[in-house]
Amino acid sequence: MIEPTVSRNFEPDIPDIVIRRLPIYVRTLRALQESGIANVSSDQLAELIGVTAAQIRRDLSYFGKFGKQGKGYDTFHLEQAISQILKLDHKWDVALAGFGSLGHAIAHYRGFEPSSFRIAAIFDRNPEQLGRQIDGVTIMSDRCIAGEVARLGIQIGIIAVPAANAQDVAAALVEGGIHALINYAPVVLKTPPNVLVREIDPIGALQSMTYYLEGEHE
Amino acid sequence: MIEPTVSRNFEPDIPDIVIRRLPIYVRTLRALQESGIANVSSDQLAELIGVTAAQIRRDLSYFGKFGKQGKGYDTFHLEQAISQILKLDHKWDVALAGFGSLGHAIAHYRGFEPSSFRIAAIFDRNPEQLGRQIDGVTIMSDRCIAGEVARLGIQIGIIAVPAANAQDVAAALVEGGIHALINYAPVVLKTPPNVLVREIDPIGALQSMTYYLEGEHE
Repeated sequence: MIEPTVSRNFEPDIPDIVIRRLPIYVRTLRALQESGIANVSSDQLAELIGVTAAQIRRDLSYFGKFGKQGKGYDTFHLEQAISQILKLDHKWDVALAGFGSLGHAIAHYRGFEPSSFRIAAIFDRNPEQLGRQIDGVTIMSDRCIAGEVARLGIQIGIIAVPAANAQDVAAALVEGGIHALINYAPVVLKTPPNVLVREIDPIGALQSMTYYLEGEHE
Repeated sequence: MIEPTVSRNFEPDIPDIVIRRLPIYVRTLRALQESGIANVSSDQLAELIGVTAAQIRRDLSYFGKFGKQGKGYDTFHLEQAISQILKLDHKWDVALAGFGSLGHAIAHYRGFEPSSFRIAAIFDRNPEQLGRQIDGVTIMSDRCIAGEVARLGIQIGIIAVPAANAQDVAAALVEGGIHALINYAPVVLKTPPNVLVREIDPIGALQSMTYYLEGEHE
């Protein structure tokens, strides 16, 4: 679940909800290309993404003109254009804080490759983890976070530590120069206004679904 | 990242964005109670949650009258009321499909306890995993999904399998009677309109943050 902290921290001209939808466009357009589909109608694309065709036109209108009336969208060109808008045409280094089973799952998540992201630093407070090599990255102590993140010039951090340590780890990442945080810990982080936080909150997602379920379940 | 599929599947009177914010209220109010704080002003609560006080009043107005003018909110009563709205005053059984490192992280996620959710069934296609006991739950084959979910009357599923198997697993869960799905696999699932899907998409979250980052990072 993504929290509304973004709108507090960043005040872009384009609504954040639109920006958050763009990765779904990229993913869908890439899947279409992999299926050999070079052109897609706005109705088809809307169906795949789960919005209306009007919404797609509104979303894209923030960035210019895409597609031709009655011709649909070129899957390759639209994907390239949106990837460029999202700055996915570069590689971004990511610092991962926490290498328990969650951190392990994140580091080995197949969705990361091929992608624009590379886990370039891993930190853990467990002494038994220190010095281990994960795909060429050496796990370092939590105490090294600020220095190492600054040395490598990393801008994006992922917090996969227990709730009790999350705020300290976030502070260290921000001290090192991180401007974007993905937070898996079930706490609301305090961060400076220039730091973007997106929360990945499976419990929150579950809690927001039971509202719609019927009946009582013991 | 939560996808907009929800609005397609469900058309509630109350906007889904409000429902998705309520778990953050619950979490924040519980944290305040743990800190011994019995009363919170709407400004303080807004600051903690990352929205405006006006937004909080609007959100809560959907459900009735909470708090007293100039008196703020009683943290215990407001949390109880919202938990009840979200039906978190019952235990909900959850089926977990996929017991790789992600599934392992989910099953052992501390944020689940104390919570309203209990992993009541675990499925994996790897024969080496079958029969293992995880907190009293025996890992079963993917082929048992529909039957076992139906037998246990489970309504909520979590998909933590690789992208290539996600659609098949989703279909089996839905066949078994699942009405709410959390999907960690980086694919857009096809599900019947009466099934609620929330996607947990760390790559999408990352991709929607680089838009805001400055400079090019090689």
